[in-house]
Amino acid sequence: MIRYLTAGESHGKALVGILEGMPAGIKISSEYINHQLWRRQQGYGRGGRMRIESDTVEILSGVRFGKTLGTPISLLIHNQDYNNWREKMAVEGSGGSVERMRIPRPGHADYVGAVKYGFDDLRDVIERASARETAMRVACCTIVRKFLEECGIFIGSHVLSIGSASLADRADTDRLIKRYTSKASCAAYKVTELADRSPVRILDHRTSERAVAAIKKAKKAGDTLGGIFEVIVTGLPIGLGNYAQWDRKLDGLLAQALMSIQAIKGVEIGDGFEMARRHGSQAHDPFVAKGKRIDRSSNHAGGLEGGVTNGQMLVLRAAMKPISTLAKPLKSIDLDTLKPTPARYERSDVCAVPAASVIGEAVVAPALASAVMERFGGDALDVIQTHIKSK
Amino acid sequence: MIRYLTAGESHGKALVGILEGMPAGIKISSEYINHQLWRRQQGYGRGGRMRIESDTVEILSGVRFGKTLGTPISLLIHNQDYNNWREKMAVEGSGGSVERMRIPRPGHADYVGAVKYGFDDLRDVIERASARETAMRVACCTIVRKFLEECGIFIGSHVLSIGSASLADRADTDRLIKRYTSKASCAAYKVTELADRSPVRILDHRTSERAVAAIKKAKKAGDTLGGIFEVIVTGLPIGLGNYAQWDRKLDGLLAQALMSIQAIKGVEIGDGFEMARRHGSQAHDPFVAKGKRIDRSSNHAGGLEGGVTNGQMLVLRAAMKPISTLAKPLKSIDLDTLKPTPARYERSDVCAVPAASVIGEAVVAPALASAVMERFGGDALDVIQTHIKSK
Amino acid sequence: MIRYLTAGESHGKALVGILEGMPAGIKISSEYINHQLWRRQQGYGRGGRMRIESDTVEILSGVRFGKTLGTPISLLIHNQDYNNWREKMAVEGSGGSVERMRIPRPGHADYVGAVKYGFDDLRDVIERASARETAMRVACCTIVRKFLEECGIFIGSHVLSIGSASLADRADTDRLIKRYTSKASCAAYKVTELADRSPVRILDHRTSERAVAAIKKAKKAGDTLGGIFEVIVTGLPIGLGNYAQWDRKLDGLLAQALMSIQAIKGVEIGDGFEMARRHGSQAHDPFVAKGKRIDRSSNHAGGLEGGVTNGQMLVLRAAMKPISTLAKPLKSIDLDTLKPTPARYERSDVCAVPAASVIGEAVVAPALASAVMERFGGDALDVIQTHIKSK
Amino acid sequence: MIRYLTAGESHGKALVGILEGMPAGIKISSEYINHQLWRRQQGYGRGGRMRIESDTVEILSGVRFGKTLGTPISLLIHNQDYNNWREKMAVEGSGGSVERMRIPRPGHADYVGAVKYGFDDLRDVIERASARETAMRVACCTIVRKFLEECGIFIGSHVLSIGSASLADRADTDRLIKRYTSKASCAAYKVTELADRSPVRILDHRTSERAVAAIKKAKKAGDTLGGIFEVIVTGLPIGLGNYAQWDRKLDGLLAQALMSIQAIKGVEIGDGFEMARRHGSQAHDPFVAKGKRIDRSSNHAGGLEGGVTNGQMLVLRAAMKPISTLAKPLKSIDLDTLKPTPARYERSDVCAVPAASVIGEAVVAPALASAVMERFGGDALDVIQTHIKSK
Repeated sequence: MIRYLTAGESHGKALVGILEGMPAGIKISSEYINHQLWRRQQGYGRGGRMRIESDTVEILSGVRFGKTLGTPISLLIHNQDYNNWREKMAVEGSGGSVERMRIPRPGHADYVGAVKYGFDDLRDVIERASARETAMRVACCTIVRKFLEECGIFIGSHVLSIGSASLADRADTDRLIKRYTSKASCAAYKVTELADRSPVRILDHRTSERAVAAIKKAKKAGDTLGGIFEVIVTGLPIGLGNYAQWDRKLDGLLAQALMSIQAIKGVEIGDGFEMARRHGSQAHDPFVAKGKRIDRSSNHAGGLEGGVTNGQMLVLRAAMKPISTLAKPLKSIDLDTLKPTPARYERSDVCAVPAASVIGEAVVAPALASAVMERFGGDALDVIQTHIKSK
Repeated sequence: MIRYLTAGESHGKALVGILEGMPAGIKISSEYINHQLWRRQQGYGRGGRMRIESDTVEILSGVRFGKTLGTPISLLIHNQDYNNWREKMAVEGSGGSVERMRIPRPGHADYVGAVKYGFDDLRDVIERASARETAMRVACCTIVRKFLEECGIFIGSHVLSIGSASLADRADTDRLIKRYTSKASCAAYKVTELADRSPVRILDHRTSERAVAAIKKAKKAGDTLGGIFEVIVTGLPIGLGNYAQWDRKLDGLLAQALMSIQAIKGVEIGDGFEMARRHGSQAHDPFVAKGKRIDRSSNHAGGLEGGVTNGQMLVLRAAMKPISTLAKPLKSIDLDTLKPTPARYERSDVCAVPAASVIGEAVVAPALASAVMERFGGDALDVIQTHIKSK
Repeated sequence: MIRYLTAGESHGKALVGILEGMPAGIKISSEYINHQLWRRQQGYGRGGRMRIESDTVEILSGVRFGKTLGTPISLLIHNQDYNNWREKMAVEGSGGSVERMRIPRPGHADYVGAVKYGFDDLRDVIERASARETAMRVACCTIVRKFLEECGIFIGSHVLSIGSASLADRADTDRLIKRYTSKASCAAYKVTELADRSPVRILDHRTSERAVAAIKKAKKAGDTLGGIFEVIVTGLPIGLGNYAQWDRKLDGLLAQALMSIQAIKGVEIGDGFEMARRHGSQAHDPFVAKGKRIDRSSNHAGGLEGGVTNGQMLVLRAAMKPISTLAKPLKSIDLDTLKPTPARYERSDVCAVPAASVIGEAVVAPALASAVMERFGGDALDVIQTHIKSK
Repeated sequence: MIRYLTAGESHGKALVGILEGMPAGIKISSEYINHQLWRRQQGYGRGGRMRIESDTVEILSGVRFGKTLGTPISLLIHNQDYNNWREKMAVEGSGGSVERMRIPRPGHADYVGAVKYGFDDLRDVIERASARETAMRVACCTIVRKFLEECGIFIGSHVLSIGSASLADRADTDRLIKRYTSKASCAAYKVTELADRSPVRILDHRTSERAVAAIKKAKKAGDTLGGIFEVIVTGLPIGLGNYAQWDRKLDGLLAQALMSIQAIKGVEIGDGFEMARRHGSQAHDPFVAKGKRIDRSSNHAGGLEGGVTNGQMLVLRAAMKPISTLAKPLKSIDLDTLKPTPARYERSDVCAVPAASVIGEAVVAPALASAVMERFGGDALDVIQTHIKSK
């Protein structure tokens, strides 16, 4: 079982992560992780912070001479902006002279956190509720992802829509993806590389341009945009996950992982909500024999039946709401006076869907890797690889 | 922390459940649970089994003189059909003369389960992967739900669409719900009672009739239908859940609970996927002061911000795919010969969306109740109630 | 990961258990489990209940045609005495006419449970805190034990002392055990069979007789006795468990399992407390090469180094306090009047150490089996067996 | 529920810890934690490393202006010796020129770890299996301990024996402890302060001197010593823990915590193994009424009945084996040649029982604090304090 915990406030000293339960012998480098951190910071529509900070990870334990030791891997990402926040975010001292934040932003945890903990400074909430935390989630999960790659399992993603700029012809994109997936187990990675070439990670060129224009317009209006992204996984063997108990179903675990990303409000598997509109005769994936191999003539299920992988490409989608911090702020109230006032503006993005898609790639890895280890268990990578091959 | 495990094969002797971690002092009766089991068996479009079996629960432990003891509650639902399956589902013996099933049904776990475990009889899979298991999930979670009700928290649900028969005017239904929710914390329960009057649990009368007609037509065609349902929760205090760690976020935990229901392929919170198309200025819920009370002028977030309840109605939606077992069977293959053959038909429903909505009501309860106990902890109900009131 | 939950009050309808996470393909029968339940009921010094009830288990799910299905296994043990307790332990009804218990027994959970939950009838506590619950623990864990046996791992136990009747010469017994363990991986089982021939499960005949006499005498005096038992496990491969994180260390997990048995107040591994008195030069197990095989010249560590199995026999010991319910009752007070009064006598044993040793054998199985599955993972027994052999 | 994970190799860059689930509002400083780290490094018999390194913690997150935020607290302890190990413990690079360790030390995880993970350099094991890791356990648990203190619960410890130097008269020490515990809930802390005055943390002056002499002698002989320590907790309310399910019993959880400390081979609660020799009439703690207060006339149970606190002082003991690394090394073999050879000597302590007792104080805190939060739950310290007072 793989566990990971993250820690760290948005403007504190550092983000910290501990990843527990990885097999020994996985090749990993900070460079490999940094590449994913870099991808998480890209995308048209990001705010100022992305320009001033370039996240780099420091591996503090669990790796020796470039390989995992089977021991807990701890990671550190220094907040480069911390120097400007030393006083406001001091661990010690009374903070007596630091201004309290008292105007909650709708859509954020500001208010609920203050009620929950009895804080009188909203900063005590927003520093951790911030999506900045996902940098460490990506760092931890990237190691898990490397393990999956060593097992022949590859994760990718692309963006389907930003605001109303949506793929005109989904079939086109599907054909594009299929072109890759028919070739190799690493197909998902190839798709994600292709998506990385677009500033908004949309595979269709014209839709990509429309999305950029929409973001530009929203920015000018002091507004923000959300969107939908898709995570795909190729190379998955049949039989990962479990139908025997509700909390071991892979569909539930993957939904949790995606829904727990900040600002995600919807998750779909395979044809998802569209499935609800169809007849059964059009919704499932018939079995066909290709020589001695059993195959399917479609993939409406998105690779999961009964909460278990069926050997087809895993297809997950998530809907991200528009960023809650607007340059032209939403209506709020001052908690001290209860008088109406605009929400406070804190430097933010206009659109972060491309980043969210990269985060989505990362967070699905632990559930998949735990399922791999349950089915092909072993303490070291080479043993697990042998177990996989022997099936 | 509330835990529950279920056990039991679809045609075995019984379904069994153990619910762990409930406070002492909650009034519970088998009658109360049976009512929810009965609701789970209703709905236009159910198959033969629903007519021959009426589930009733036996409480074996954890309750004395009508109140929980704080000890594990164990439940039993006898499979009334077991007499006809004694030989096929025998716990002991060789089963030598029992016919093996070798034709997997697309959309079910039949094939993936057989590959996973190396079974040569698909029945070894389908008996547990079956949605029959949800009867025990409903039984366990109904006790949790009773606890929530004692805390002033009420859960309800209604169906939004079946196949293409979808609410013409969602606003109408929202107004209907609002009429109740403005009055009392038990509003969700009132809504669910209203929905129970429709054979498909759709609040709008005309849509309900169209849905019934669609099911009738699908049945005639040997086909099946899915749909979308909505679970709502009223009376939730602010501050349940946690934004501090990915696996404690209530949005993720609720998504897992719903996605782990058989045949669910999508989950939304609040405005969900629709959020992804909107601008930030139209997507969030501004704060307004009503006298000394802080309120919101909308509920796009569906009651959760940062994975924490914000005091508004919780709104969750789930998409159910059409039943995978069709009277006019899907294409499959015989696993022995790899020759094409129609999938085997096993008695099934045409549409089970109304039942799924009742299951949805149930399965969200443990995550909510665990959050209540974390925030207002105590060993006995009256202590927890005092803690809630004192906030 | 193996999970199990038990439920059931001592005089309620039944004990219930669910065992989750077992591989498919393990041969299991109720007869096999009943044998362990029978062993748990034996031993000189047991009270009346053991004579009137002979526990038998009913397997309700998870097993078909004598083999596990990989699905949750649920078990039922009916309380044969329930007929006499129908009114007192009724699930429903007001219980208005049932006498409340108000005199707590020192050493039991009676008082702490009443304070914890606010009960005014101590029966609400003692019914679950009772060691009767261990019958279901034994039943669940026996299935896990069968899995271990299929992996070549065998568990046994014997009693070392009852009251002051203690093995005069521990070395004698060690030689006896060694005679078996030098021969076969199932040695532990052989030892346990031998111990079963003594009415108090003591391998040395004279000590056994002294123990019986001590129990006889205690009984006459209205008193009770505790003792010490040893659980041994043979056939364990090197490398089970983990030193990487505190909560994955096998020594900690085994200590938890044993200490959680009712009335256990001490746990030792290998030479245990005796170790604390020795010099390092006399306390560890030097490596020796026997041909190409690496071996040890002693087993002071009891088979665990760094929380990981080292291929030697696992040796665990537990100390059981004397039964807290005495025929000549301890001093107590009436909770209503706070006046001194003798504790209430409820039918009980004079000595249950032999039974506790059988329970000890059972409860260590899940931690060991989880470690086996982590190291040699797979969904079905034959796959796991292949993984073990290939090491 | 409180969770914590530690990471870090003994000679790597740093030890890292994340503590999750703490309430908001607990006053904490690095100074407070450093004091416990300092105590962990004391004791007559420690080796060279303790002299060259003085552990200090850096709080990286979860604390602002001296108070916990309810968010994950991450801690860092730099390994001051790392500069000398940069090459040998490099995270990146091939390590080609670094000498492999091939001679396992009996009593350590060296060999079992190498077999488990297939390592050919024993350093890959010993760096994490080392008790160095407990520095971070102490750091994390010290914060939990501070929370307990704010709830009126205090933890202390003292050493009972080192090698054969054992308290001549345990009753003397008990009287000493009683003198404090009769006065205040913080008694345990007072006792621990007193113990800190002895170089071996033994309360009895003459035994302390004999222990120092024994260590001196062992050192001269190139040998090592273990011992027994006792952890006590005062101020515990009645009703923490749970008898309802085996894995929620506080006795089991505390035994796990202590047994998971490196080199611990035995754990006792209350009178422990001594209990096994006594009659029931002498082994339990009769109830007595002191005015309107219910009290006990003894504390054989050590504060736990049925796995639940009974309001008496919690008494836990643990046996530590002698350090496995000897200056006059134990017999081992070279894994390359299988030829006999002395075990490699790596700088080590002669006796670490005083340190272990400080570690023991720390590691019991999370289980106790989780039980407090379950019974008196709340998100912030002041709320929990109010809940405690209102009982």
